[in-house]
Amino acid sequence: MNKFQEKTIDTTKVFNGRIISLQVDDVELSDGNYSKREIVKHPGAVAIIAMTEEGKIVFVEQYRKPLERSLIEIPAGKLEPNEAPEITAVRELEEETGYTTEQMQYVTSFYTSPGFADELMHVYFTDNLIKLDEAVPLDEDEFVEVHYLSLEEAEQYVLEQKIYDAKTAYAILYLRNRLLTHEAK
Amino acid sequence: MNKFQEKTIDTTKVFNGRIISLQVDDVELSDGNYSKREIVKHPGAVAIIAMTEEGKIVFVEQYRKPLERSLIEIPAGKLEPNEAPEITAVRELEEETGYTTEQMQYVTSFYTSPGFADELMHVYFTDNLIKLDEAVPLDEDEFVEVHYLSLEEAEQYVLEQKIYDAKTAYAILYLRNRLLTHEAK
Repeated sequence: MNKFQEKTIDTTKVFNGRIISLQVDDVELSDGNYSKREIVKHPGAVAIIAMTEEGKIVFVEQYRKPLERSLIEIPAGKLEPNEAPEITAVRELEEETGYTTEQMQYVTSFYTSPGFADELMHVYFTDNLIKLDEAVPLDEDEFVEVHYLSLEEAEQYVLEQKIYDAKTAYAILYLRNRLLTHEAK
Repeated sequence: MNKFQEKTIDTTKVFNGRIISLQVDDVELSDGNYSKREIVKHPGAVAIIAMTEEGKIVFVEQYRKPLERSLIEIPAGKLEPNEAPEITAVRELEEETGYTTEQMQYVTSFYTSPGFADELMHVYFTDNLIKLDEAVPLDEDEFVEVHYLSLEEAEQYVLEQKIYDAKTAYAILYLRNRLLTHEAK
């Protein structure tokens, strides 16, 4: 998959932060002309579709500074260096929801914003939740509130734009699909 | 939706590019402590789920410099200043695929990466495609190849990671869902 490949002529590092970094690449386009590409580097992330025994989906509400509002999302978090995504998925589930699991099933992966960022999101599913006796601490600048919603309630929250992000929109379609496929059998 | 609101103490503008800009906000957290938030600003985007009369889905392949590879995605593009998303959607459909439409149906919107970016993606659907007599020029640094795939072929491409981005993964689930709901009737 290297159709219309763009050759890097020069890279200018603009910013190196705690979570993301930014660079501008001077590129030679596939027609021989030149352009610039603004690129955000991100370590990658996981998201977890988690369902309780009662068939409720586990969500977390948190403040999203880029949007100046809170969103209700499925649990998620970024990869630590050299951490396997399924390990990150269990860790984030424990930290954000107080549950753990021994069955973390891989669903899919996708780039969230391939036009300007390299963030790759790995999505997992579990319906085998075990309540932890003791809470696992969150990052010190992280605050979340857990919500338990039925699929119908979650779909209503999509219409109300309380649920309003790509991974969570995907998760809800995934669960609706699972239900429809199951019902069709 | 302002749970755990974070108050801006100071904003440092780091970069102002052609497509994105970057700032670092010093914030007061909901517990009174302080932290920093790295924030990418983006004008917002549209994506179009387009289906031909023959039931094929219209995709475009393009090189994604942040990933150093090409992806096969649904047609998409960023909003111009003060442009209504449905206008952008028709324009991007025309530029990238050579089709236009008089029926652009709104599906949903979602933030692609709410942890570090404010990019909001608006998704549209059309199965009313009209072939343009003349090609509409792309941006001068933009190169795309059009692909027509059945839903089954597209799902195979997901498994092969040729389709590997959030909006396109969402689109494929959306169409699968539409089909399942229709079949159930």
